[in-house]
This record gives sequence, structure tokens and C-alpha cells, in this order.
Amino acid sequence: MSPAGPLAWSLESTDGAARLGRLATAHGEVETPVFMPVGTAGTVKAMTADAVRSTGARLILGNTYHLMLRPGAERVARLGGLHRMADWPGPILTDSGGFQVMSLAPLRKLDADGVTFRSHVDGSEHRLTPEISTAIQHQLDATITMAFDECTPFPATEEQTRDSMAMSMRWAARCRAAFAPRPGYGQFGIVQGGVFQDLRDRSVDALAAIGFEGYAVGGLAVGEGQPTMYAVLEATVPRLPTDRPRYLMGVGTPDDILGSVARGIDMFDCVIPTRAGRTARAYTRRGVFNLRNARFADDDRPLDPGCACPLCTRHTRAYLHHLFRCTEMLGPMLLTWHNIQYYQDFMRGIREAIRAGRLAQHAAAQRATWQEGDDSP
Amino acid sequence: MSPAGPLAWSLESTDGAARLGRLATAHGEVETPVFMPVGTAGTVKAMTADAVRSTGARLILGNTYHLMLRPGAERVARLGGLHRMADWPGPILTDSGGFQVMSLAPLRKLDADGVTFRSHVDGSEHRLTPEISTAIQHQLDATITMAFDECTPFPATEEQTRDSMAMSMRWAARCRAAFAPRPGYGQFGIVQGGVFQDLRDRSVDALAAIGFEGYAVGGLAVGEGQPTMYAVLEATVPRLPTDRPRYLMGVGTPDDILGSVARGIDMFDCVIPTRAGRTARAYTRRGVFNLRNARFADDDRPLDPGCACPLCTRHTRAYLHHLFRCTEMLGPMLLTWHNIQYYQDFMRGIREAIRAGRLAQHAAAQRATWQEGDDSP
Repeated sequence: MSPAGPLAWSLESTDGAARLGRLATAHGEVETPVFMPVGTAGTVKAMTADAVRSTGARLILGNTYHLMLRPGAERVARLGGLHRMADWPGPILTDSGGFQVMSLAPLRKLDADGVTFRSHVDGSEHRLTPEISTAIQHQLDATITMAFDECTPFPATEEQTRDSMAMSMRWAARCRAAFAPRPGYGQFGIVQGGVFQDLRDRSVDALAAIGFEGYAVGGLAVGEGQPTMYAVLEATVPRLPTDRPRYLMGVGTPDDILGSVARGIDMFDCVIPTRAGRTARAYTRRGVFNLRNARFADDDRPLDPGCACPLCTRHTRAYLHHLFRCTEMLGPMLLTWHNIQYYQDFMRGIREAIRAGRLAQHAAAQRATWQEGDDSP
Repeated sequence: MSPAGPLAWSLESTDGAARLGRLATAHGEVETPVFMPVGTAGTVKAMTADAVRSTGARLILGNTYHLMLRPGAERVARLGGLHRMADWPGPILTDSGGFQVMSLAPLRKLDADGVTFRSHVDGSEHRLTPEISTAIQHQLDATITMAFDECTPFPATEEQTRDSMAMSMRWAARCRAAFAPRPGYGQFGIVQGGVFQDLRDRSVDALAAIGFEGYAVGGLAVGEGQPTMYAVLEATVPRLPTDRPRYLMGVGTPDDILGSVARGIDMFDCVIPTRAGRTARAYTRRGVFNLRNARFADDDRPLDPGCACPLCTRHTRAYLHHLFRCTEMLGPMLLTWHNIQYYQDFMRGIREAIRAGRLAQHAAAQRATWQEGDDSP
């Protein structure tokens, strides 16, 4: 049922720091921990919306940077919003655009008020500020709007990190002021502060004082390594409001997700399963392997016997190898579908383990199976 | 029901020269006139087998040339045949490989016994003869095997055409001798003779004397133009055995198909709907249009309101335009699906018109609607 107030998250059970919960939104309910497939420009690459739904995915991510350039936020609004345009009536989270501006756009210029940049597509000039990013996400009809911030580069000095974080916190307040509350919609603030825990703590305090429907941890998975990422999560997550969902942006591998759920994270997004699907890398119950490898040319086994996707139930590894060798579009189509199915099944397994109070054993078993490889009995 | 004898075609009704019929094969029944989507290398490009089936397609085509090079005919046989490899339990027709050798392979050398050529993929040397082509199609488990012939180039002199046709007829006899009859399987001979009607007549007589489960008309749609193609069909088709299916190879546009059905053709294949789907060209009830055109950027109508495919029922022209502008794979995926759906609906309309004895009126109405264009009321 759609909430009368803002988007709301409710806790169902815990297992250590890990949390099983439910997100109630204007566009339907989502069980957490959840993995969001990335639908960059209004499409999860190489998949129909039906195929995405069939994997069990209930929440997808859209990229404000890509959508504001093409087809344009006003055009998306005229077409009835991103849900209608992309045939995704379920909830959608949009990022703020800031991260892609810094990684994709040429000639970007940051100032205290926002960032001016040129489009990587046609060179046209654009500007994003806290207010503009929030307004664009409203035009896209994002169920969850992200605060516009600066993802502090890694490595950065403590001083650089402090200045960047302080600016992001000022921007967070402006984003909140610009956000138009609607029943079942929400806005998330983003914790910055790099690897400096006192800065992370100050960022958490600043965001909690503003008050958001959820809190993201940003500026991680940018090269600091898994041990550092976990250390930051262990110190940061316990300080976050307990009644709001926690989102670790841009993470990650199945192993990263296992470790982060165990540290209290509820939401994830990453291009890994979709990008890997286009480059012949398969995520499976037996680990990761590259289907271009010649050893698969005559392998008449299903890719992942435990998987219910069309690739695994109807085709052999040999056929998938053949499709990638011939650069047939069906290769990326089937493998992306499988990888998203794998990630959704993987998250379902995590949720069941939390419910049963055996996440640690589940994680250990998963890691052991990945390491056995695909030629094990 | 699968026939006890060879693949069989039965006439259900006629309308002028047009025929409504039914092809009974080891892999299921097919209503004719039928259009076969082209599944070049074991996949109808950009579509899952499920999607192809959902359009009503019941018979697809595979290319011997592509499959013998990758993944290799022996490998396809080891993987259980093309049906199993490609998740297509329905009937499959394979061509003989000859046409693609002449159009794709470098360093091809034709002799009286066959053709030696290098692979366009890796330069490796291969050979096709009537016996080898027939054996390869057996390894692929083709429901319908095509005779190995030379598609006489256009233009060609009468002498060149005579020699080429005579060689193809000698090869046809060798193909028939090499073919292993199996219940519900069949082999088609191919009429050659270019635009010279006496040569066409002699070719028909030669093939009928050998005896095949079906007869193809080859060497058309190679640049001779629609009036010449129709003239050849008008003189050739009435001479073909009336109790066997007739297949016009490589044809064509919806208009070509209408005219050829009216001249007694039962089967068609062409890359037009799939290739067009990858290049933003849409085949619709209102004619053909290019979705890259800027006029579609804000067009919130369905591509073809009469179509039941996922593109037409769930998305706008503006979204499809956006996908092609961003080179998102979903653009080719959805438009190929639509184009194949359109072709299948179009064939269904033709079959209903023949049954009702009003093919001429149906064809006139189709042509009028195509010309009205997509902005008509």
C-alpha cells in the first residue's frame, strides 16, 4: 500500500548489524537488502523492462546526467516521467548527476554554487546546482531523489576532504529546501568525508540534523580497497538514524555486498552485472568466468544449473560462447539477463539468511562455493 | 502430427494463383504462405527464441555458411543440432551455403565439382560440394535442406546463365542422392535460369524429374527489378508441381510478398525486418519510417497502434527515437521484435484474405494504407 506520508522504511528483523526491512513507496514495496540494476539512460542496458521484472528486481536506478542530456528532463516530463517512458511502474531512484559530471563531462568547472560543464555528447553547456539537480529529478519523477554532492576524489588530503564534505553538506541543506515532498516519495542525503572518520562523523551529524528519508554512504568504492571501505562502514553506519534505509552507492561485487550487508547497509547499485553481461563475464554460484574462453566451446552444460533465467534453462555454455565469438547481440542480452537474475537471487538468499539469523554461515558458504569454481562436482 | 513419410504440404484453398496450405514437418506444422525470419548464425539477431515464437513465427532459416564456420557443423551436431542449440524446437530451413560463399567469402574458386573458399572470419580454407553441403545440413539437423546450387549473377548472358543453370541441375541430382530421407524432413530443389524463360522451364523440368519435397525459385531479387521478377514468376510457377510448396528465396519487402503470393508462392525469407530493426527502420501498417528522424523526438504515440508487440503496447515513438539516438541496445531489440511481429501479422492477413477469397482487395487496401503514411487520422 502506498504510504500517506513520505517514503518509509520499516525494520523486519536483524542479524548482527544486518537488517531485513521493507521500503514502502508511491510505486510499490521493496524488500531490503536490495540491489538496484542500473538503467542509465532510461533502459537497463540490453534488457526489456519485462525481463528486468522477471528477475525479481523491484527498484532500478536512473542517471540524471545521462537523462538531462538525452532525451532531456523536460522531454521525459512531457512523456509522463521516467516510469511511463521506460515501462517501469515500480520505484526508481535517480542519482544527482554530480558523479557522472566529474567522470564523463569535459570542461567541467566547479564553484561554490554548483558545476558548469559541457555535454560529452554534443559539447553543449549545462549547469547543475543543488536546486537544478533536485528540480530535474522531480521532472524525471524519481521515487527517490538523491542530494547533489561532490564525490570527493580518492586519494585526497584531509583538508581537501574537509572542504569538499563541508560544501556537500551546505548543498545537502539546499537540496532539502528544494525538494517537494509527495506521498511515497523521498530524498536521501549522502555522507561524505573520505577515509577520515571525524569528517564522516560530522557529515552524518549534518545530514541527520537536516533530516532525510534515507542516507547514502558516498565516496567509497573509488579505489580505497575493501578493508578501508569496511572500516569506514563499521565506524559510520552505527551513527546513522536506525529507522531510515542506508544506501552504499556504486557497490559492488557480490563479495562487497555480503560484507556491507553484514555492516548494516540496505541498498546497493552497481553497473557490474550489466557491464559484465556485455563483455562475456558471467557471475554465477560457482564464481565469475569469461565465456569467451575457448574451454567453453564444447561445454554443453548450463551456465549456472541453479539459475532459472532463460540462458541457464534453455542454452548451453557452448552456445553462449558461440554468440560472443560471433558478436551476436543475443550474447549480451542473455548474459546481462543472467547476471541480473544472479544478483537478484543472491540478494534473496541474503534476505532469507538474515530472517533465519544465519547470515555469517550463509556468507561463508557463498564464498566457499565461489572459490570452488565451475568444474567442481 | 508429425508425418510418417517425408515433409508434406497440403492445399487448403486457393484464390486465383494464391494458395493457402499447411506444411507438416517433423518439428511441427506451418501455415503457408509463410515468412521465415532469418536466424543467420543460430540466432534471429537481437531476439530471444521466445520473442520470435511470440510473434507467431513457426519456421526460421539458418545459414549453412555462417554455421559451418562458427561454431562448426560437427560442433552443432555434438550440441544436439540447431534446434536444441538455438532453443527452437520448431522447423528450421537451412540454405546450402552457396549464396553466402559467393557474396561474403574471399578467394573463392568455383569448379565443376563445387567451390573452395576462405573464411571471412579467419582466412581458413573450406570446401562445399553438393555432397558436403547436404551432409552439413544433416549435421545441423535442418528440417528442410536446400540443394547446393549457383545463384546465377545478374546481369548474365544467356550462355553464362545456361551453363550455370546446367551445373546447378547436375548438382541438384547429386544433392538428392546425398540426402538421407527421414520422416517429416525434406529437401528442396532450386529453379535457376535467370531471366531466360526457356532456361527456367528446363530447370523446372530437370528438378521435377529428380523429385523434391518442395521447389524454390532462386536467382531473383538480385537486381532485376520487381516487374521482371513478377514476369519470371508468372511463367515459372505454373509449371511447378502443384502438390509441393514453392519458396521464393531472399524476398522481400511486404509489397514483393503480396505480389508473389498472388503469383503462387508459399514461402519467403528475407533479412529486411531484422536488418531494418537494427538501423531504426520501422515496417508498419502505415508504411516504412526511420525512427532516427527528429520528428519522432516528442511523438508520444505508439509506433503502430494496430500492433501487439511490446514496443507498440508499452512505449512511445519518442522513447524508441531516444534509444536509437543513444545507441542503446534496447532500440534494435524492440524494433526488430516489432518488425518481425509486423511481418508475421502481415502474413496472417494474407492467409485470411486467401481463405476469404479476397486477396486482390486485401492487397489493394494494404498498399493504400502504406501510402497514407503515419500522420493520417
